[in-house]
Amino acid sequence: MSEQEAHEERTEISSLGEFRLIDHLAAAFPPPQEPVHTGIGDDAAVLERNDSHYSLLATDMLLEGVHFDLAYTPLKHLGYKSVVVNLSDIYAMNGTPEAITVSIGMSNRFSLEAVEELYAGIRLACQQYGVQLVGGDTSASRKGLILSISVLGKVAKDALVLRKGAQPGDIVCVSGDLGRAFIGLQLLEREKRVFIEHPNMQPDLSKHSRIIEKQLKPEARVDIIAALHKAGIKPSSMIDVSDGLSSELFHLSKHSGCGFTIMEERLPVDEEVYHQALAFHLDPTLCALQGGEDYELLFTIKQEDHKLIETIEDVSLIGYATESDLGLQLISKSGNRHALKAQGWTAF
Amino acid sequence: MSEQEAHEERTEISSLGEFRLIDHLAAAFPPPQEPVHTGIGDDAAVLERNDSHYSLLATDMLLEGVHFDLAYTPLKHLGYKSVVVNLSDIYAMNGTPEAITVSIGMSNRFSLEAVEELYAGIRLACQQYGVQLVGGDTSASRKGLILSISVLGKVAKDALVLRKGAQPGDIVCVSGDLGRAFIGLQLLEREKRVFIEHPNMQPDLSKHSRIIEKQLKPEARVDIIAALHKAGIKPSSMIDVSDGLSSELFHLSKHSGCGFTIMEERLPVDEEVYHQALAFHLDPTLCALQGGEDYELLFTIKQEDHKLIETIEDVSLIGYATESDLGLQLISKSGNRHALKAQGWTAF
Repeated sequence: MSEQEAHEERTEISSLGEFRLIDHLAAAFPPPQEPVHTGIGDDAAVLERNDSHYSLLATDMLLEGVHFDLAYTPLKHLGYKSVVVNLSDIYAMNGTPEAITVSIGMSNRFSLEAVEELYAGIRLACQQYGVQLVGGDTSASRKGLILSISVLGKVAKDALVLRKGAQPGDIVCVSGDLGRAFIGLQLLEREKRVFIEHPNMQPDLSKHSRIIEKQLKPEARVDIIAALHKAGIKPSSMIDVSDGLSSELFHLSKHSGCGFTIMEERLPVDEEVYHQALAFHLDPTLCALQGGEDYELLFTIKQEDHKLIETIEDVSLIGYATESDLGLQLISKSGNRHALKAQGWTAF
Repeated sequence: MSEQEAHEERTEISSLGEFRLIDHLAAAFPPPQEPVHTGIGDDAAVLERNDSHYSLLATDMLLEGVHFDLAYTPLKHLGYKSVVVNLSDIYAMNGTPEAITVSIGMSNRFSLEAVEELYAGIRLACQQYGVQLVGGDTSASRKGLILSISVLGKVAKDALVLRKGAQPGDIVCVSGDLGRAFIGLQLLEREKRVFIEHPNMQPDLSKHSRIIEKQLKPEARVDIIAALHKAGIKPSSMIDVSDGLSSELFHLSKHSGCGFTIMEERLPVDEEVYHQALAFHLDPTLCALQGGEDYELLFTIKQEDHKLIETIEDVSLIGYATESDLGLQLISKSGNRHALKAQGWTAF
């Protein structure tokens, strides 16, 4: 930037944070109109498609050194994960992904063989989820690897689930377990530090393979979407867990205009994750609330679907929606109530 | 990359070039199947939408230091241009853009005010072309500014125009004039060098404003698409001129399975561009053939539409399609034939 600009008014982006920045920028744009049903602010945009279906459009950018570290991320896994995190946004609308575009910027430090590895992972994810690669862009970057993926999907109009829609009394559900991807990241970071200090030591991560895999090669929960459909349950609201449970509850709360009360004892924390968190001197509950990148589905259902949801495996009922003035609360194992913040909870 | 990888087989990406790299990577993916009509390889992907229309999906990534230089690119112009280049891909399918997503990665050297400028340009382009911003992603980057935009559009099934479809005898047309964006870039680069050597000198680019604007704030030729529609002309093939005329002719040739013969005297070169090229000791014809970023439309029409096309302003008839064995040829002003290469032409 020029010297001149440096003397003008300057507000640091960090003073807003990502969510407020997006809100701030979006506010300057007109509200959605035909053919856009839902624009900025949900997991995917919703657009008119035909009499029975909407189109869904989502996008995600992954930057080396910010979102991934190639010191411990195999390129094939990176390709796979970068597709999966996008598909997860479509499933979070109760939709079906159809096609992706992949744009890649990479410096000349990457060989053709390296790029092939990356695309092998992209191809595997496409096969796994029945999605087609339909376009993209490759560029030379001056430094580092940049991945930007967009996904187009569809959803039956009467099946669309938004972040908006939860009502007081609804049951809060989450798939799988939480905090595993975060602990996986801690393990990988620790091994990286060990490797830097002792380059000849071979890391043995095999005993933690389930945890590590969740970080390096997560899956999108299409199985949960299929099970909900089969059981005849349409969630009243839904979001995927990319930034952490607290943060996602905050989004559902803001869009739905209700509060949420979560029970600590109901939070699904894998036993191995629990012990590994303690080994890192971390609070397992905090890991479950704040650890991102689990790509599980967080959703609310009507109380009348209570019996039906119990027929679905790998879903935990962790709390309920309340009036908005109660805000976000956590009832601890000892029975105390604590206010949850978007990025975690207030200290005891 | 680890030391270990560095010892494995290594093929430099530069040994392939961008187009061959894309072909190589795409070859490992299965051919398009329902609901994809056309996948990788055209200006936009074409997907089934409803009985009457297809959906179109395109994407583009712009990297600081590779695609733009903030030393002479105002952020508002950058925002505008980054939208326009994507919309151009949808028009090149004879379609209508509806919605875009914008992902941005930026380092903390950018203030909120700078980001607002960028989005002001994005907003202006959205207004200008009747397109809605429906989503995106903002990330911290370690260095530089990264922009990735995707666009969703639609096209009536009977109006779809691909790169494939030109046949021998078809007339080759191009909108506007060529080489202007390239000469604009040369002017900006020259002023940058002057500024670095003499920081107190104020550049006077005002007399070149038409040339500079083509580089900094190009428009997508929606007017040409509308005029073709009004005249009842459906091009037999079409592409937008982003990498330069020669390169785009190469793409049309490859997809359509035909050759092209272009007449040098018919190439639309603006008089000011012509003289400025000579001032830079550049061949104006070479600038028209190789200079990218004009975002004009290159298309072919049937001979029977010859009378109709002459009713449309700002379109030049520059040559004709031939049998494929004739390849790409340029007939010079002096009447000699020269082979055109994808990135220009062979030396005289």
